Amino acid sequence: MPDPILTVRGCHWISIAGVSDLRGRLNFVEAGKGLDFPPKRIFWLHGVPAGHRRGRHGHRQAQLVLVALAGICQVHLDDGKAKETVMLDDPGRGLHVEPLIWHELTDFSAEAAILVLASMPYDDAEFIRDYDEFKRLAVARVS
Amino acid sequence: MPDPILTVRGCHWISIAGVSDLRGRLNFVEAGKGLDFPPKRIFWLHGVPAGHRRGRHGHRQAQLVLVALAGICQVHLDDGKAKETVMLDDPGRGLHVEPLIWHELTDFSAEAAILVLASMPYDDAEFIRDYDEFKRLAVARVS
Repeated sequence: MPDPILTVRGCHWISIAGVSDLRGRLNFVEAGKGLDFPPKRIFWLHGVPAGHRRGRHGHRQAQLVLVALAGICQVHLDDGKAKETVMLDDPGRGLHVEPLIWHELTDFSAEAAILVLASMPYDDAEFIRDYDEFKRLAVARVS
Repeated sequence: MPDPILTVRGCHWISIAGVSDLRGRLNFVEAGKGLDFPPKRIFWLHGVPAGHRRGRHGHRQAQLVLVALAGICQVHLDDGKAKETVMLDDPGRGLHVEPLIWHELTDFSAEAAILVLASMPYDDAEFIRDYDEFKRLAVARVS
């Protein structure tokens, strides 16, 4: 089944190459091979208790790819106009998130481990943590 | 507790930077920040059934960092002379493996997801899959 098309600007699913056999599954990415950018920062979220949320920001420049390596969570995407909620639940499928997309992760299962590949090193100034500011920037971008 | 020193040549534990609070844990690496090389290939092993093993090879050139993002597994390391078995069980601790180290992963727990960061893109010629050849190369290296 092809991955569903997302309506939020600049967000799409990536089918991650892999090998599956009796010995289990292996999925892989390389820059230029299933990944549009060289990953400059790699981080993972885990041990998120029920009822807690992560993210709740947008990036000015960074692109992200999110993959559930174990367990599941929900991702709420918002481009300032359209909103959409998707489930991360497959180690073979990545969610590409462009800059200027407000994203929030919720409903982590107990064993969830969410891998994030980012196109930039960490830079606090690059985060938009105020929703009103995000909204102004996002609307200005499309108008 | 400091990470134990490994006796196998060129293998060591990396304490991965992270932030832990009521909302769960986040661990991160960047090239030059907790990682000696820019990751050129990123892959993950998951869904490995009980009794199955992965790896069973050495690399001519690639350096690896292995991290259990979920679950646990054993890693058997062999430099041609010394052998050592360690447990991957902490998303905040990475196992650095140098070239010319035979490595095998076993005893995956059901939910295990093992992340591997590699210093090179995939190149089949760069794998040593024959143990006798590995042994010859490893012994030649140290003598």
